[in-house]
Amino acid sequence: MSVESSDSNGLNAPRAVDLLIEARWVIPVEPHAVVLEGHAVAVDADCIVAVLPIAEARRQFVPRERVELPEHALIPGLVNGHTHNPMTLMRGLADDVALMPWLQEHVWPAEARAVGPEFVRDGVELAIAEMLRGGTTCCNENYFFPDVQAATYRRYGFRARIGLPVIEFPTPWASSRDEYFDKALEVHDSLRGETLLGTSFAPHAPYTVSNESFERIQLLSNQLDLPVHLHLHETAGEVSDSLRDFGMRPFARIRQLGLVNERLIAVHMTQITEAEIAECAQSGVSIVHNIESNMKLLSGFCPAEAIRRGGVNLAIGTDGCASNNDLDMFGEMRSAAMVGKMIANDATALDAATILRAATLGSARALGWHEQIGSIESGKQADMAAVRLDAIETQPIYNVISQLIYAAGRHQVSDVWIAGQHKLRDRQLADIDTVEVLARARRWRERIAAA
Amino acid sequence: MSVESSDSNGLNAPRAVDLLIEARWVIPVEPHAVVLEGHAVAVDADCIVAVLPIAEARRQFVPRERVELPEHALIPGLVNGHTHNPMTLMRGLADDVALMPWLQEHVWPAEARAVGPEFVRDGVELAIAEMLRGGTTCCNENYFFPDVQAATYRRYGFRARIGLPVIEFPTPWASSRDEYFDKALEVHDSLRGETLLGTSFAPHAPYTVSNESFERIQLLSNQLDLPVHLHLHETAGEVSDSLRDFGMRPFARIRQLGLVNERLIAVHMTQITEAEIAECAQSGVSIVHNIESNMKLLSGFCPAEAIRRGGVNLAIGTDGCASNNDLDMFGEMRSAAMVGKMIANDATALDAATILRAATLGSARALGWHEQIGSIESGKQADMAAVRLDAIETQPIYNVISQLIYAAGRHQVSDVWIAGQHKLRDRQLADIDTVEVLARARRWRERIAAA
Repeated sequence: MSVESSDSNGLNAPRAVDLLIEARWVIPVEPHAVVLEGHAVAVDADCIVAVLPIAEARRQFVPRERVELPEHALIPGLVNGHTHNPMTLMRGLADDVALMPWLQEHVWPAEARAVGPEFVRDGVELAIAEMLRGGTTCCNENYFFPDVQAATYRRYGFRARIGLPVIEFPTPWASSRDEYFDKALEVHDSLRGETLLGTSFAPHAPYTVSNESFERIQLLSNQLDLPVHLHLHETAGEVSDSLRDFGMRPFARIRQLGLVNERLIAVHMTQITEAEIAECAQSGVSIVHNIESNMKLLSGFCPAEAIRRGGVNLAIGTDGCASNNDLDMFGEMRSAAMVGKMIANDATALDAATILRAATLGSARALGWHEQIGSIESGKQADMAAVRLDAIETQPIYNVISQLIYAAGRHQVSDVWIAGQHKLRDRQLADIDTVEVLARARRWRERIAAA
Repeated sequence: MSVESSDSNGLNAPRAVDLLIEARWVIPVEPHAVVLEGHAVAVDADCIVAVLPIAEARRQFVPRERVELPEHALIPGLVNGHTHNPMTLMRGLADDVALMPWLQEHVWPAEARAVGPEFVRDGVELAIAEMLRGGTTCCNENYFFPDVQAATYRRYGFRARIGLPVIEFPTPWASSRDEYFDKALEVHDSLRGETLLGTSFAPHAPYTVSNESFERIQLLSNQLDLPVHLHLHETAGEVSDSLRDFGMRPFARIRQLGLVNERLIAVHMTQITEAEIAECAQSGVSIVHNIESNMKLLSGFCPAEAIRRGGVNLAIGTDGCASNNDLDMFGEMRSAAMVGKMIANDATALDAATILRAATLGSARALGWHEQIGSIESGKQADMAAVRLDAIETQPIYNVISQLIYAAGRHQVSDVWIAGQHKLRDRQLADIDTVEVLARARRWRERIAAA
């Protein structure tokens, strides 16, 4: 994995690079479950150029900047496989209620009062600050006003796949099916050539999107090679309603419409049969597991271990802050590991290394970006997070990966890089005016709570 | 709840007190689910003397010290209902394995190498630092060398109920049944008159303690009015083994031995029938719920909501760090609330206020100390924790109690008082040399990991 440069005499001359990160531990995720002690990561421009022992790195590279992390684990940036980041402004709006009253009595009325470009911008800004402070470097976004989302992620240099929403009723974003599609393609076109941003189609759910729209999405997804980011089998009720209305399970309907393929990002899948697991594995579908949202809204329990063992790519997401109530991928990993054992009835299920892999490379693969991000390997984008482990709460250390999943908290993330840019430096956000972000969050609270 | 003093003219003169804490929100826990905005808590010596609006407090009291908490929620100190704090030195020793291999292949061999007075002292010190930094002010301790534990808790002014261990095999603490009991009574006697410390009998479990020992415990517990802190119905295997060996469930055996009464602290109870819930309610048994340990070791799933609805006092504990892997009562509350909905199949189960109550007043009641601690009420001991909520991760705020349970982390605890003593001040531990505590933890790690 090391890169060398030679001078004209054939001897190795040190190579100039932008950054050398020297860490107590590097956890590359690929190869799996490996902890590299006393390793360095050399970064040039936006790329990782080498992962190698510190002493060797000092011989091979002359960095413009050196960052020493003597008590830290360096991990790939976490990839949030499913979120609705503008809803960060609705954090904790309605708790301890089930999915349908939560949507109908709380979330939808609040959205009717609030959603617009400013809400989306301010919510995404708050979310970016929270994600960076928690080691997340990329997210799979799913909300209205994707144009505003994209502009906000671009402004802060945050990596995101932006969902292009499709739903069969009017919203402040679009008022007809044609308008949803026209605007989706317009946003998609406007983002060509972006280095950190991509798009996906984001049909809301089988129960809110018609066959006709799914067919259009299937054609366009094929043609443009775009992922389809879909809430699927979130609840048992969704499945039984579909059996009543369509004579088949939502997954079967989606398959019939040609959408079961390697571009499908199936979110939730709390209801899944063995045959469906096999089909997902065979066709390359990714499943995003959002265990905390599923528990909190009592949506159902995704058999994540069975899915993984069945050969399906497993990703991890937080869902939106109105249900979770945070964008804490550390909390989500921990819950997924613990509750996963319970659902699988196996204490060895979803071990720490497997969960870390799902929250990095697994989510990256779901987004179609596993060649670019999700592991610390030479040639990949330099998206990384450092977690400081010398706190009282994470000592002593017997197993670093276990410690990250079962004891560490996101507040122990000290540094974050996206595409080689230092976004969080010793807990300080590089480009975000947090006072202003918080002031806006409080203003939205007044407006939403007043109604 | 306010206290007034009058001068000789019958007019109200301000009263001198040691401390006035002025908080954005005070959550007293009793009355239930109430949030007092802009309230103050007046403290004199070790006691709360009033809870009242800030303006009123400033008229009534002249404090020697005033602490302003303009962005904080003040809650009762959290009470960890079940822990093995010396095992903090074994944090993450063995993860992703089931209870029996965890005990037999990892924990017991490590204990055989390490356990002694120094191990217990150093582990408890590390645990006290972690607990204080996480808002915990009292714990229900269960390990060997209760004399060393007591000395360590006393040195740091930490409130604890110290279990007096009884088990039917020799350990470094005692080598025969008589020695366990002799030493238990000796430790109990040595702690008479302590203000922050108490004892309980801690027979390990039905499968490691004989009827004869239980009978002695029953007599002594009665005579000395001491709680009995017992792992009970931790796994289905424990229940089936008991049916095979004793012809009855462990709970029935314990009842037959006269131990099912208001002094019993039943820990785990993952296996419990409706009839057993009714008996626990009627006899005043407390049940301590340790959801994270139960999930991680796949012990089983305590039906906490059914237990609570059945009228049983519900407490919350973390269990020891070798299984959990932390002493994080915030994490435990969050998991209990989320997973509790799943087990109860009800999204409204174990709502945020109910869980906060279980982790404070519920645990206090389990320990027999609900008259002294567990809520912020005039006349109670001044055991409190302040949680700073203006971080990115906990804004905006719609519901303060929800925010504490579903979004806040223990690192947001800014200040902690025990019996009026300021133990954590703006994240700084008052009396603990953390450098030394961490150095000792690392030395234990070398010793334990080497073998």
